[in-house]
Amino acid sequence: MKNEISIGLLGFGTVGSGVAKIIQQHQEDLQHKLGAKVAIRKVLVRDAGKDRISDLDPNVFTTDIEEILNDSSLDIIVEVMGGIEGARAAMEQALKSGKQVVTANKDVMAEYGHDLLKLADAEKCDLFYEASVAGGIPIIRTLEDGLASDRISSMMGIVNGTTNFILTKMKQEKKSYEDALAEATELGFAEADPTADVGGLDAARKMVILSSLAYSTEVKLDDVNIRGMDTIKDGDVEMGESLGYTMKMVGSSTKDEDGIDVSVEPIFLANSHPLASVNNEFNAVYIYGDAVGETMLYGPGAGSLPTATSVVSDIIAACRNLLLGVNGKREHAAQHERVIKPADKSCSKYFHRLLVDDVVGVLSKVSAIYSKHGASIQSIVQNPGTNETEGKAELILKTHEISRQQHLDVLKELEGMASLISHYRIEGEDAA
Amino acid sequence: MKNEISIGLLGFGTVGSGVAKIIQQHQEDLQHKLGAKVAIRKVLVRDAGKDRISDLDPNVFTTDIEEILNDSSLDIIVEVMGGIEGARAAMEQALKSGKQVVTANKDVMAEYGHDLLKLADAEKCDLFYEASVAGGIPIIRTLEDGLASDRISSMMGIVNGTTNFILTKMKQEKKSYEDALAEATELGFAEADPTADVGGLDAARKMVILSSLAYSTEVKLDDVNIRGMDTIKDGDVEMGESLGYTMKMVGSSTKDEDGIDVSVEPIFLANSHPLASVNNEFNAVYIYGDAVGETMLYGPGAGSLPTATSVVSDIIAACRNLLLGVNGKREHAAQHERVIKPADKSCSKYFHRLLVDDVVGVLSKVSAIYSKHGASIQSIVQNPGTNETEGKAELILKTHEISRQQHLDVLKELEGMASLISHYRIEGEDAA
Repeated sequence: MKNEISIGLLGFGTVGSGVAKIIQQHQEDLQHKLGAKVAIRKVLVRDAGKDRISDLDPNVFTTDIEEILNDSSLDIIVEVMGGIEGARAAMEQALKSGKQVVTANKDVMAEYGHDLLKLADAEKCDLFYEASVAGGIPIIRTLEDGLASDRISSMMGIVNGTTNFILTKMKQEKKSYEDALAEATELGFAEADPTADVGGLDAARKMVILSSLAYSTEVKLDDVNIRGMDTIKDGDVEMGESLGYTMKMVGSSTKDEDGIDVSVEPIFLANSHPLASVNNEFNAVYIYGDAVGETMLYGPGAGSLPTATSVVSDIIAACRNLLLGVNGKREHAAQHERVIKPADKSCSKYFHRLLVDDVVGVLSKVSAIYSKHGASIQSIVQNPGTNETEGKAELILKTHEISRQQHLDVLKELEGMASLISHYRIEGEDAA
Repeated sequence: MKNEISIGLLGFGTVGSGVAKIIQQHQEDLQHKLGAKVAIRKVLVRDAGKDRISDLDPNVFTTDIEEILNDSSLDIIVEVMGGIEGARAAMEQALKSGKQVVTANKDVMAEYGHDLLKLADAEKCDLFYEASVAGGIPIIRTLEDGLASDRISSMMGIVNGTTNFILTKMKQEKKSYEDALAEATELGFAEADPTADVGGLDAARKMVILSSLAYSTEVKLDDVNIRGMDTIKDGDVEMGESLGYTMKMVGSSTKDEDGIDVSVEPIFLANSHPLASVNNEFNAVYIYGDAVGETMLYGPGAGSLPTATSVVSDIIAACRNLLLGVNGKREHAAQHERVIKPADKSCSKYFHRLLVDDVVGVLSKVSAIYSKHGASIQSIVQNPGTNETEGKAELILKTHEISRQQHLDVLKELEGMASLISHYRIEGEDAA
């Protein structure tokens, strides 16, 4: 049996340096757990001359990625460099040369995960990606192992810390979206360019990874219905609150006989739902399994050490397999064909906030349109907070369960008669 | 490679029948995941003649445990029969004959887990016990794998559904303890004899299992400070609420340089703590790791299918190892010596509710006793709700952080001057 496992680390930013730190500090525990030493032998950096606070031998640093990928003495390649094409190519090359791969890269896994996992299977190598979704939360492992015997029927995830932080501040401190975003940026919870976060792309990528795994199907990014936070209008958060809902940016994913339905959007979540009290930068994934019922995993979604913890847990798993000679034994091939649920089968309750002419008979005209499309209305009230200048009134409408197609058809036909201020799905009213 | 794994099931009660159901219903998924069939070949029952709703071949049922334990064609023994000595002996015999063992038995794992795990190591067999703690929540796996690279410094668990259900009803519906217990019994959340639940023993066993694993030490049941729900007095739940706390029956476990400290008792938990909103029969384990920070797993703590899900996930893990020929490769030997933290090092904030004579000077006498023992008082108020008959007054006291020893010393010295109505540790004020 080997008495040392050699690691090549691609990237030495916040996550990469965290990985090195944990491996150095926990060397004794690792030895106990594995019966072998884990050593970082090569580290890819952008600038070899830069001063680094690190206990690593200065000779391990290199700016030449080929020096690492071609080093046949390395057992595991850990990809924490970020970006898409370079990272994808490096993982492909590593797998093709028989190395085990651990990655924290959700962008690559969402877009090329299916291909890379197939390649790993073919090359009989491990490809672990726990850290690609929800930082420190062991969600991939839970879906693969802990709930291996269950059939997952739906998942809801708060998987983007930036948007959750912003919405928490908007609700708890009545901040405007702009002020909350500025605070998130200042505290390091938001990127300089927050587009992928607030636009929902980041969360959508994570939901693609989780859905593919949970349903054993090749879900694609294009399958996700994405709406960004820019669709939230002034007063919406408070209006939700007055109705018993918390506004949350949620990735939803369901599977039933009609297919898979994945979305990322701001929704109104019943306050009693366990996800409604997940605040600030925290992430959580709520899972519904046929047998287990409801479970939830909660924790830090990002950050150097939480994410590095997941990476190192994956490294440990790869080391175990290496020492036992059983890498690449997981079956990653999708079990089921990818069937995406059509819009007329995807059902929810909806909240519609409309601006209409404040004239006699408008309510009956509006409700006639809903009934024409078979969309049953649960309640319709004139927003008491409306400033009724210019002869306009705001209507707050809640539907019973209707299909997304009905929702879209109604909104289309309302054009001309009413202008749509905002709309949200309503979730979680029947939950515990 | 084997194309079938044979299971012997010891017990066919709620969990056992759930295991059979999941294995039957998910046979196709299991085949896909494992590349082999999983078949239940023998089932131990109490009464062979009883009519059972089951798809299993009637010939698999037997009342003779030796027929199962001596069957060399069985690969995995699944112990879901309950009880202590019979179950322990069966697991021992199974391991000694080279069989893999999966158990849901917390009583046995809390008392004999260390010995059985050592035996499993010696016999190179797997011994999996995910279902022994918090039913459907994959907490054992998370501690073993997901957080394998982290150093756990504390855990808090709501790991008994019965007591959590009772406390939820007492808080939300203002029910008395007796009424809430009666409702729990009626709904099947409490046993006919609820002593082990309300007395804290059940939760203590689970905390022993979790602490042993998280800290890689042999924690024993005697190490746990246990206080049952019978120490809760009328008005305590409401009094906590008025101070911003939720009363919860919590298993706490910490490890630092002074040792390990494990307790199970009703505590006052700050409402902002993630565990405070875990309601009804749900379980949750909150984990604090040095690197990952705070994470929480939430889900059903009991029930036929949730618990069976965990058992079957363990069966799948054992099957994988069998097919790869790598059973018994986990190191279970404790890495650290067991050091229990002394009472003078175990620090918390405390709530004391005292009944004193309503006379001039009593407040200064009481506070002098605290100060004599170096126990700093954060606030002391006369309970405005007190019915001041018979010249008595109630004092509500909150301490700053003091040691359990100081807490005990103060309470001892107060005897004679004040009678103690109730006392609780206060937790979670600094949490997110």
